[in-house]
Amino acid sequence: MNSDHVTPPMHPPMGLFTDYYELTMAQAYHHENMNDTAVFELFFREMPRERNYIVAAGLEDVLRFLESWRIDDEEIDFLRDQAHFSPEFLGHLGAMRFTGNVYAMPEGTPALPREPLIQVEAPIQEAQLLETFILNQVHFQSVVASKAARVTAAADGRTVVDFGSRRAHGIDGAMKAARASYLAGAAGTSNAAAGMAFGIPLFGTMAHSYVEAHDREECAFREFAALYPDSTLLVDTYDTLEGVRSVINLRRRHGEAFSFRAIRLDSGNLGALACESRSLLDAAGLNDVRIFVSGGLDEHRIAELLSQKAPVDGFGVGTSLVVSDDAPSLDMAYKITSYAGKPRLKLSEDKATLPGRKQVFRSRKDGRMTGDEIGLHDEPPRQRLPLLVKVMENGRRTMPATTLDQARHHARNEIASLPDAMRSLETAGNSCPAATSNALDRLQKVTRQRAAAGGA
Amino acid sequence: MNSDHVTPPMHPPMGLFTDYYELTMAQAYHHENMNDTAVFELFFREMPRERNYIVAAGLEDVLRFLESWRIDDEEIDFLRDQAHFSPEFLGHLGAMRFTGNVYAMPEGTPALPREPLIQVEAPIQEAQLLETFILNQVHFQSVVASKAARVTAAADGRTVVDFGSRRAHGIDGAMKAARASYLAGAAGTSNAAAGMAFGIPLFGTMAHSYVEAHDREECAFREFAALYPDSTLLVDTYDTLEGVRSVINLRRRHGEAFSFRAIRLDSGNLGALACESRSLLDAAGLNDVRIFVSGGLDEHRIAELLSQKAPVDGFGVGTSLVVSDDAPSLDMAYKITSYAGKPRLKLSEDKATLPGRKQVFRSRKDGRMTGDEIGLHDEPPRQRLPLLVKVMENGRRTMPATTLDQARHHARNEIASLPDAMRSLETAGNSCPAATSNALDRLQKVTRQRAAAGGA
Repeated sequence: MNSDHVTPPMHPPMGLFTDYYELTMAQAYHHENMNDTAVFELFFREMPRERNYIVAAGLEDVLRFLESWRIDDEEIDFLRDQAHFSPEFLGHLGAMRFTGNVYAMPEGTPALPREPLIQVEAPIQEAQLLETFILNQVHFQSVVASKAARVTAAADGRTVVDFGSRRAHGIDGAMKAARASYLAGAAGTSNAAAGMAFGIPLFGTMAHSYVEAHDREECAFREFAALYPDSTLLVDTYDTLEGVRSVINLRRRHGEAFSFRAIRLDSGNLGALACESRSLLDAAGLNDVRIFVSGGLDEHRIAELLSQKAPVDGFGVGTSLVVSDDAPSLDMAYKITSYAGKPRLKLSEDKATLPGRKQVFRSRKDGRMTGDEIGLHDEPPRQRLPLLVKVMENGRRTMPATTLDQARHHARNEIASLPDAMRSLETAGNSCPAATSNALDRLQKVTRQRAAAGGA
Repeated sequence: MNSDHVTPPMHPPMGLFTDYYELTMAQAYHHENMNDTAVFELFFREMPRERNYIVAAGLEDVLRFLESWRIDDEEIDFLRDQAHFSPEFLGHLGAMRFTGNVYAMPEGTPALPREPLIQVEAPIQEAQLLETFILNQVHFQSVVASKAARVTAAADGRTVVDFGSRRAHGIDGAMKAARASYLAGAAGTSNAAAGMAFGIPLFGTMAHSYVEAHDREECAFREFAALYPDSTLLVDTYDTLEGVRSVINLRRRHGEAFSFRAIRLDSGNLGALACESRSLLDAAGLNDVRIFVSGGLDEHRIAELLSQKAPVDGFGVGTSLVVSDDAPSLDMAYKITSYAGKPRLKLSEDKATLPGRKQVFRSRKDGRMTGDEIGLHDEPPRQRLPLLVKVMENGRRTMPATTLDQARHHARNEIASLPDAMRSLETAGNSCPAATSNALDRLQKVTRQRAAAGGA
């Protein structure tokens, strides 16, 4: 092991953020003079049991990466040492840029199984090399956005804040989980870097350690409130209701000089404690002090608290949101569907794909989605909304980048337009599979026969 | 929304990779002239149901971050705009560096609930601000290393390769999952960037898209094998056994001119297909061609295949490994246990902590672990191994950084020294909770009484 590898670098060599086989395949294509246009489509095979729809996310990261993608000299040197690559191919690889077209569902669009979220139409070597990055970003961000849509739906208009950075999977995981949560309806994040990078509103209260570092709990409350009159005081370090009584007494003693906006409960029976805290606060005339809760929350816990009429004004949601604990992955793939103008598919058991470049047509009635049909890209829309939009041509964006707030607005509208059953937290039988068009079915039949006869 | 936020940056502002409340608390401490030495300990509360031990990982990233941590001018400017911070505090914050001591279990050490994996002893403002980063890295990397230890144990000496980058949670998630998997026993990764950054051996075969891009499957095999005589040919794109027959026929026709090292099966009944493929290969005299399998594998699938005597030589494991699907998070926390020389704890229901700076003593007999005791840091080890080692003093490492291969070697030895029950894939009753020492119990009792009486 080389001494360079003693400590992990802060910034990975992004030109090589790809599976090694993409590189060996790229050289094989190059060697065979194969670089015709391929179409690759990114989709997921099955709806997770606990979801009715998936919120597409991650496109902005993909487009930004495609615009600047290159394999730099240091990365080429590393590949040279691997002994699999010819100097001629490495020269070719170092000069490669993304020159293709991209069609995609805008971020925030609800998607169904088998529907392409992103379609890459490019020389096959480029399209192949970019598989790993595209999947990595769209898969993860869509996983979190879909969970966030459920959590915010459960909160029914109340504030939801991403508290998950400490349990997210790595730095990029925390940053993008904050972004995906906000995209799908969260009010903000606790992660200051995500606030700075993405313009997401920041939320912060106080931690138990702050209370513990003071010799008495009420000293901690007094000092914090003196500095931050809009603060949220964490009352459960030792005994929740004693904590509430303590802030009430401080208010009585100091009046306006002891101002705070909310209390936070982070342990115990949150529903019962919220009720008792509310009563104590109201009896003290502190009716405008809000109650914020956190600690092991997910959409089901939130729905349960609200069904019990727990007087909760906001929720801090961490782990379950950022790792999407009940569905931390999707069976998402990026598959070739056409090469050199010919439709392609695979027949592997349980993993067969739909051939040809496609489009997704969404039908609506009175502003509500009634169903999706997956068809070929050149079928007429017939009053239906085509979900895939051209976002990149010859390696350049076809339109200005979408801001996160625009994407969030789109997500809110699109989710609102889903049938009530799909928007429900209940999942049994509440999703709505996409149909396939007759033209796509015919193409699939013909392509399958050809493939089964020994090749594409 | 500011136009800077149109597209996500590639490199997050790492100085602010912290929860916003750490910053508001830091200012409160500063305002109160509180910056005495605090001890914070990182531990997890409960063993996940599907684990018998957790493999500590992520320390190298933590130490590297602590060595270079600062909040830069641009980040300070961002904070200035948030209206919570005084110019005086922002000046103080911009000058802050990590000056504390760190004690930690070396990466690769198996850990139990309540045991500190990392102990930070530093001025409270520094220790507090670094919470989010330390938890983020150690939590996630330990989650994946622990899953990898089970997957490699199931493979029982056969090759396991991380194939998960496309389903990992983000870029850092993919990079560190590759590293954590290798640390805990995987033979390598498919991620070229992780190979370059960490010196992890790279593995790659071919994808279905390569086969599909060719008009006939056997053309794809012939071209690939001609370029890479050590290749692994993917045989299941259309029909697995037809694929195997095809490579055998190519070998018959072309002899040594058609060389390959292995076949890969990625769909269908992997056990049955591996047996049939082995028979076909052996009958053709290709006894040294290896069989590599992938597709939805985890430790249970691998153990099942091997218990059926499936002739499999290696496993590509993706999603279940890198998201640790059966335990994607741990209930891990970073809690203050001492401030200004006084032990601290919280009493919150189900979340009470152990006070004081601690040590973990591991007992062994005949080279096998017999049990752990959590005690106070200054208790005599009495023939037991203290697991927490001083790795940083006054913000500088006390010893050269550990290489990944050294950490991997340590993990192998430490896991091998666990009792057989703990190393088993079965988890019911097979773990072994750590005891607490009498001295710690006494300290806890006294500190609890003081806290219950209204403060630390």
